[in-house]
Amino acid sequence: MVIQRGKEMDFRPVTHTNEQGCTNEQKEKRKSGFQGKCEEGQNNCTIDSCVTNFSNIYESDLLPAQNGEECTDHFLHEVVDILLSYIKKTYDRKSKVLDFHHPHQLLEGLEGFSVELSEQPEPLEQILVDCRDTLKYGAKTGHPRYFNQLSSGLDIVGLAGEWLTAAANTNMFTYEIAPVFIVMEEILLQKMCEIIGWRKIEADGIFSPGGSISNLYSILVARYKHYPEIKTKGMKALPNIVLFVSEHSHYSVKKAAAVLGIGVDNVITVKCDERGRMIPNDLARNILKVKRQGKVPLYVCATSGTTVYGAFDPLVSIADICEKYNLWMHVDAAWGGGLLLSRKHSHKLSGIERANSVTWNPHKLMGVPLQCSAFLVREKGLLQACNQLCAGYLFQPDKQYDTSYDTGDKTIQCGRHVDVFKLWLMWRAKGTRGFEMHINKFLELAEYLYKELKIRKNYKLVFDAEPELTNVCFWYIPPSLQQIPKGPERQKRLHQVAPKIKARMVEEGTMMVSYQPHGDKVNFFRMVFSNLATKKSDVDFLLDEIERLGKDL
Amino acid sequence: MVIQRGKEMDFRPVTHTNEQGCTNEQKEKRKSGFQGKCEEGQNNCTIDSCVTNFSNIYESDLLPAQNGEECTDHFLHEVVDILLSYIKKTYDRKSKVLDFHHPHQLLEGLEGFSVELSEQPEPLEQILVDCRDTLKYGAKTGHPRYFNQLSSGLDIVGLAGEWLTAAANTNMFTYEIAPVFIVMEEILLQKMCEIIGWRKIEADGIFSPGGSISNLYSILVARYKHYPEIKTKGMKALPNIVLFVSEHSHYSVKKAAAVLGIGVDNVITVKCDERGRMIPNDLARNILKVKRQGKVPLYVCATSGTTVYGAFDPLVSIADICEKYNLWMHVDAAWGGGLLLSRKHSHKLSGIERANSVTWNPHKLMGVPLQCSAFLVREKGLLQACNQLCAGYLFQPDKQYDTSYDTGDKTIQCGRHVDVFKLWLMWRAKGTRGFEMHINKFLELAEYLYKELKIRKNYKLVFDAEPELTNVCFWYIPPSLQQIPKGPERQKRLHQVAPKIKARMVEEGTMMVSYQPHGDKVNFFRMVFSNLATKKSDVDFLLDEIERLGKDL
Repeated sequence: MVIQRGKEMDFRPVTHTNEQGCTNEQKEKRKSGFQGKCEEGQNNCTIDSCVTNFSNIYESDLLPAQNGEECTDHFLHEVVDILLSYIKKTYDRKSKVLDFHHPHQLLEGLEGFSVELSEQPEPLEQILVDCRDTLKYGAKTGHPRYFNQLSSGLDIVGLAGEWLTAAANTNMFTYEIAPVFIVMEEILLQKMCEIIGWRKIEADGIFSPGGSISNLYSILVARYKHYPEIKTKGMKALPNIVLFVSEHSHYSVKKAAAVLGIGVDNVITVKCDERGRMIPNDLARNILKVKRQGKVPLYVCATSGTTVYGAFDPLVSIADICEKYNLWMHVDAAWGGGLLLSRKHSHKLSGIERANSVTWNPHKLMGVPLQCSAFLVREKGLLQACNQLCAGYLFQPDKQYDTSYDTGDKTIQCGRHVDVFKLWLMWRAKGTRGFEMHINKFLELAEYLYKELKIRKNYKLVFDAEPELTNVCFWYIPPSLQQIPKGPERQKRLHQVAPKIKARMVEEGTMMVSYQPHGDKVNFFRMVFSNLATKKSDVDFLLDEIERLGKDL
Repeated sequence: MVIQRGKEMDFRPVTHTNEQGCTNEQKEKRKSGFQGKCEEGQNNCTIDSCVTNFSNIYESDLLPAQNGEECTDHFLHEVVDILLSYIKKTYDRKSKVLDFHHPHQLLEGLEGFSVELSEQPEPLEQILVDCRDTLKYGAKTGHPRYFNQLSSGLDIVGLAGEWLTAAANTNMFTYEIAPVFIVMEEILLQKMCEIIGWRKIEADGIFSPGGSISNLYSILVARYKHYPEIKTKGMKALPNIVLFVSEHSHYSVKKAAAVLGIGVDNVITVKCDERGRMIPNDLARNILKVKRQGKVPLYVCATSGTTVYGAFDPLVSIADICEKYNLWMHVDAAWGGGLLLSRKHSHKLSGIERANSVTWNPHKLMGVPLQCSAFLVREKGLLQACNQLCAGYLFQPDKQYDTSYDTGDKTIQCGRHVDVFKLWLMWRAKGTRGFEMHINKFLELAEYLYKELKIRKNYKLVFDAEPELTNVCFWYIPPSLQQIPKGPERQKRLHQVAPKIKARMVEEGTMMVSYQPHGDKVNFFRMVFSNLATKKSDVDFLLDEIERLGKDL
């Protein structure tokens, strides 16, 4: 053990019980059945309550410090105990989903929790306290009553996968430094392409840092396929290209159009039906209109599982139109892609096999820890051709292995985080059938909520149709509003209900659910299920709780 | 404990000793000093060698399964033991840096290690074996003799930070679901801006998924600043804009130009001196030339720490030119940015305070685990204005807190991984002075290598100048080549030396160092130091080992 600043490393009892972190001597004593007193005045102290005192130990005592093994061992076990305690709280319905504080409160410091950085190191004891505080004031995204985002839950095998990924601390750009992960990515991409219905040998793809970037890839590749000169000459060499999305699609297509130099004005919004599905006739009408204007329709983004309504665009009709007018068909299945694993529900994505590219985020419905998003493309080699610049210092062609496994030049990144291992490990642990079972369960919860909402008199559905995905959208109508006749005044007041209930719910920390307006609809709640910990009783709780928090509004 | 398929959960002794994973009964026995036999026929088994047998336990037994706490505890502790054993091996010079196998070997399966995915779940025992195998066949990027990339080492506090980040499993897009991390990002961005020399209240930034994306942001923001109409109308509404980089700069600027619709042809390469530094006069000459062609010079990317030579462009002269011609000045300090923390070496980035934007990757010289890259911009609000689309379903303006802390609309992503916590935790644990000490040490190692190379007769420096960063570039000249007079034949043979030595080194797994050609220079080795575990003796080993592997060539 390296001695820090002349102090001895100090092992003494603390108040909480801990299985790890004893000295070798203590371990030996434990093995031989010794039950000792650790320090005078601590008569009731058992061996198991002896943990390392980190107040005199610093980061510089950890590996690679000489003889740093033991200290590293103790420290990491202590961290893991903090995390395990957090994980158990996460799953405990009695614990708060969130202990909310405003930004200025956190910046000013709370009960000794300071986020300030200093010149000198803090001892490891403080680092452990920092870890506890960070978790204390965060949101428990794995809590059974956290419904705030499409990604929720905390999969233990996925977590283990992330921990291993962090320890491996490598980069996906070349095979030589990430051989196993590169091969796993290949296996996963092939598997996902096969599930979509593409011939796997022809398909290709990449894991990217989220669905927005995956959608950006789709436009990038579509543009390159039609106009390879884009790469060298830029948009100025191209005709006026136009993209199509539905009014319920994710905003990332517009964002990508801004980034890629296409411009948001060149993204046409196609109308949806009342259920949030793109209307194919309106797509065809818009394509013809754009053509008449002398512009070039290039690309359609259909959505399988819209963010708010959970709607599935009619892919077969859209594919027919794309074929007829020679448009690139992208399917944003970031949210709904998981349904492909369910024999009961996969029909909702019928036609996806006709897409040119697909975004599918395992970090949503499949419950993989963030981040894990796949961009999949039917034509092999296109991604590489579109993005490669052949930087000699990184992608040496004269390496001793098959350098087609160096994936770095397929991407718009250079270094790339290993997002695939946790998904691979989860797939091994659940099997395809395990994912199917979980996803079917989420849909049953949505079905249950939908039926409950139809029964309860203070709730109103945003659209009355059985959920196709796990999204269920609804208003809570407080008693005071029931008296007011339909009209602008009632709409104005209803618009304020969800934000007020949300603020109270966050303040109390009992649950988290998101709300938003959409089109001409005033603020409504959007429930989504993607957490295995959630049960029907949590759905009951949600509805009771909204009533409790909102009945006086 | 949920019983899987009618089987009892089974605790029985296995051959290796393990501190964790015993049943409650065993824990009680341990506490009371009991030293028992776990199963008949295992007479020498102590309590400590009792670990859970995971062969009948499945992922479905883990949390959130009812009574899944214990199983989860055992499983995660087992994973952590695997990781701890890996970490110790990583730091052990006697262990291989890499146990190399070709892609087809990994795909076909090795000694029972199969990467295939199946319909049915594997028991947790297999999942643990998978974890061990994944690590076994990977590259140990924290090994003291892994010099292959700019990112290396395995910082234990950073690792703990990643583990916590994974358990928190949240997303940076809104404050409500990541309050602590959002505040930490604010603190870190301000700190980094302050270190650059900007008035922190005016500066802004974002953590992005890597240096290439950060560099992409710089062009995106520069373009928007000069031409805000780009967002709606695209590149067609702009004049012919031109970007400037040096011939030693990172390829990501060209890649971004392709992505952003600017085109690689509109990126002008400025000449460098023999040391790899941009020549300001050549920049000025090119700007004037472009102007004469009727094009609009928009942006210069200067580099502080080039990838191969580790060169620092003369920022003050470049800033003068940018000011004179009204160009956006970006500094790509992805690699060299860490030097700002060293009072001894920060002068090499003098002038960086005049930049409009900076890329700085803490996952490189500062040793933060991958990924951790900051894009910093001097003008506050520009990033938001450039990227925001105000998606109502995510960024509700009527939330109960100050929604300027919702960072999601500043980015080109939607969901964004939490990359900041590990950096924050490391900063707390090391202090600014800790980073300084480490970085100074890396530069001393480079200095040592440089001096050794000058002494050893079979080595030749690519350029003879004291290292400014930790890069040292050199050829090994095998005895057989020393006979051959300088000329094309010798060059041709020398070009093959590094790849051959690298192949042998990878095959034997004794170390990893990268090589590449550059400009008119044939393949040479590039050494970099960014791993705290590396010592001078490892530098000696490197040189001896290259001789050993290459002397017969």
